[in-house]
Amino acid sequence: MSTMSALTPLFLSLTPRDEAWSKLRDYIEPGPRATRAVPLLDAAGQVLARDVASPADLPGFARSTMDGYAVRAADTFGASDALPALLTVAGEVHMGQAAQMELPRHSCVRTATGAMLPAGADAVVMVELTEKLDSKTIAVLRAVAPGENVVAADEDVACGETILRSGRWLRAHDIAALGAIGVSEVEVSAGPRVGIISTGDELVGVGDTPAPGQVRDMNSYALYAAASLAGARPEIFGIVRDDYDVLVQAMRECLSSVDMLIVSGGSSIGARDFTRQAIDALGRPGVLVHGVAVKPGKPTILAVANGVPVFGLPGHPVSCLTIFRLFVEPAIDRWMGAEPRRREMAARMGANVASAAGREEYVSVKIALRNGQVWADPVFGKSALISGLVRAAAVARIPAGSEGVQEGDTVAVLAWGDCGGE
Amino acid sequence: MSTMSALTPLFLSLTPRDEAWSKLRDYIEPGPRATRAVPLLDAAGQVLARDVASPADLPGFARSTMDGYAVRAADTFGASDALPALLTVAGEVHMGQAAQMELPRHSCVRTATGAMLPAGADAVVMVELTEKLDSKTIAVLRAVAPGENVVAADEDVACGETILRSGRWLRAHDIAALGAIGVSEVEVSAGPRVGIISTGDELVGVGDTPAPGQVRDMNSYALYAAASLAGARPEIFGIVRDDYDVLVQAMRECLSSVDMLIVSGGSSIGARDFTRQAIDALGRPGVLVHGVAVKPGKPTILAVANGVPVFGLPGHPVSCLTIFRLFVEPAIDRWMGAEPRRREMAARMGANVASAAGREEYVSVKIALRNGQVWADPVFGKSALISGLVRAAAVARIPAGSEGVQEGDTVAVLAWGDCGGE
Repeated sequence: MSTMSALTPLFLSLTPRDEAWSKLRDYIEPGPRATRAVPLLDAAGQVLARDVASPADLPGFARSTMDGYAVRAADTFGASDALPALLTVAGEVHMGQAAQMELPRHSCVRTATGAMLPAGADAVVMVELTEKLDSKTIAVLRAVAPGENVVAADEDVACGETILRSGRWLRAHDIAALGAIGVSEVEVSAGPRVGIISTGDELVGVGDTPAPGQVRDMNSYALYAAASLAGARPEIFGIVRDDYDVLVQAMRECLSSVDMLIVSGGSSIGARDFTRQAIDALGRPGVLVHGVAVKPGKPTILAVANGVPVFGLPGHPVSCLTIFRLFVEPAIDRWMGAEPRRREMAARMGANVASAAGREEYVSVKIALRNGQVWADPVFGKSALISGLVRAAAVARIPAGSEGVQEGDTVAVLAWGDCGGE
Repeated sequence: MSTMSALTPLFLSLTPRDEAWSKLRDYIEPGPRATRAVPLLDAAGQVLARDVASPADLPGFARSTMDGYAVRAADTFGASDALPALLTVAGEVHMGQAAQMELPRHSCVRTATGAMLPAGADAVVMVELTEKLDSKTIAVLRAVAPGENVVAADEDVACGETILRSGRWLRAHDIAALGAIGVSEVEVSAGPRVGIISTGDELVGVGDTPAPGQVRDMNSYALYAAASLAGARPEIFGIVRDDYDVLVQAMRECLSSVDMLIVSGGSSIGARDFTRQAIDALGRPGVLVHGVAVKPGKPTILAVANGVPVFGLPGHPVSCLTIFRLFVEPAIDRWMGAEPRRREMAARMGANVASAAGREEYVSVKIALRNGQVWADPVFGKSALISGLVRAAAVARIPAGSEGVQEGDTVAVLAWGDCGGE
């Protein structure tokens, strides 16, 4: 039978967010760790796990960027409306065709946007700046410089050039660029396995009917969904009663098969809050931070046990998900070797909101577009309510040094999803 | 052998974006259409296809929101530091337990945040506002009002109340709320089947090695990725040569098995641009818009053939993806019955950018955080280049009525993904 390794503190010592994150961060070696090969078409939204260099020059041949005539630029020097340069039309190059000929002096070939330039040609004259004199001759009304309206053979991407770096969240544009260089499979980061435990004597499973006094374990579902959306591989390990020995045992079993562990509930300093002591029993270095200067989310634990990051999150679901976004998601990104996500957007606060100085406050808001601007409108109501979960679309940050923000002030906003809210 | 049904126009007539969208929109009946049941844990990021009402009151029992003592509020009226109310401690209710007793007059029970109130109790006194006189008696130092520090049995969600509406993009918070009311499976919208055709004599497959003059078909990949990320079910139907009859045949075959059709390339008015004529041959009403007042993306076709939305997108990949975002994504949302996505964020332009009035311009930008604000920094370079695809993180909109924006002006930005760009 194990015993608690530390006395329960009476008060939490609150660590500012940046400082709390930096204490944890250094224990997470930047990835990518686990990787897997996927067909390019399935890679959108995933994290590239290796730099990708182009195996060839792109476009690979000099290409016109205009409809017009491919020319030797020198043949047009001095050309003007008053004194056009007369060129012989030596042929036409169609899209997709190789330009076989070498362009003779004082000649041109008809070309289209994207078509290949013949050898010898180094510029394109737009069709609007020419006049057709007869079937074999055009007048060029303006001089072009060498390279004008042309993409050189290696101008887009040179052979061997890195076009995308490891860590990239692949978007449709990247898939297009990879397709252009002939990549049909890429190595992507597999997300960390994230174990999820809920603690609380009042909890029953989502599939169960609560008796009076009981509530369903919504946090396991919230964290599973949040971890999935963040690119991790979550696994729910179930509900653990508020019992130190049972909790230590459950966490120990979970630790052997996950890359990160989240325990929700029991992270405060009440008589029945065992998460801190249980984490300290698991391995070194144990708890790094207990208490963050963030509202909601004060009773948060950041820890590492034998190399595995362990998070003790508050039992209240809004707090739990806010802290997930602030600490767990960056940890997942770092573990995967992913570039930081664009987490924040700017908005103007839709009402005056007071806040206690000394801690960051995240106020639940809806997002609205008014007069071409993005507004964050506070959602009022008791924070304990489940209905509050579905009404807010985002949280707006009031900085720790501020006693509030005024209507119209610009604030940073963390959106909960891609949608507008109610 | 079919023949072209219309003469090729000499100039495009450019329709403003909002007007172009409204012409198409009315042909798309708002969904949801195809739906499927998924386990709640797999539903994050998908579109809810039915309203969900709570099958029971939540929390289902009166619950404390504080650690302290459950009381009859009337027993505390008039209490102060000088004249405390003395109450008999009749017991304790633990988390998860049913409160079996009826609270006697002038008594209280020890309670914890989230625990059930006994019958008769209608308020909770915070422990900090009490003094323990002996093992059976406390002094209450301040009066509480009925309902104070309590969530009533149906205060969060009443039985039968709709907590989420059809069309919601489900986020982690919603999954939590659904779990709380005991929903373990939800009906979600299946995305539309989107057929993708690329046209162009210069195109070869992504897996092929282009000969001089040829390029790989990156647009099919770009559109497949964009459609996947938007929640649709894309299918690539391959490359079609610039031949009217072949294109009509290919589109006709595709139309029979898809809910929407995208053809990239051939959407302008050149001698080898057959998309417009081919669409008009497919069915009524045919082409609704040919040419939009948007840069890049002018040669865009919006059409409907026998009830199926058909999009002719520009061959240039950046244009193609910009137009996808402006027209195809809203069409997908409407087809699925999804609430509009939060497409835009606000940013301050990082440099002066000129623009021709009369059309909306979308300028490729990187997103940067400076001095606590979000900045959109223009990415310069030839727009034809593939390398430009990977450098920009977003596009910033310059309104049609404007000749440019100045450094520091606030602009609307469409982000390409969740990451920061290079």
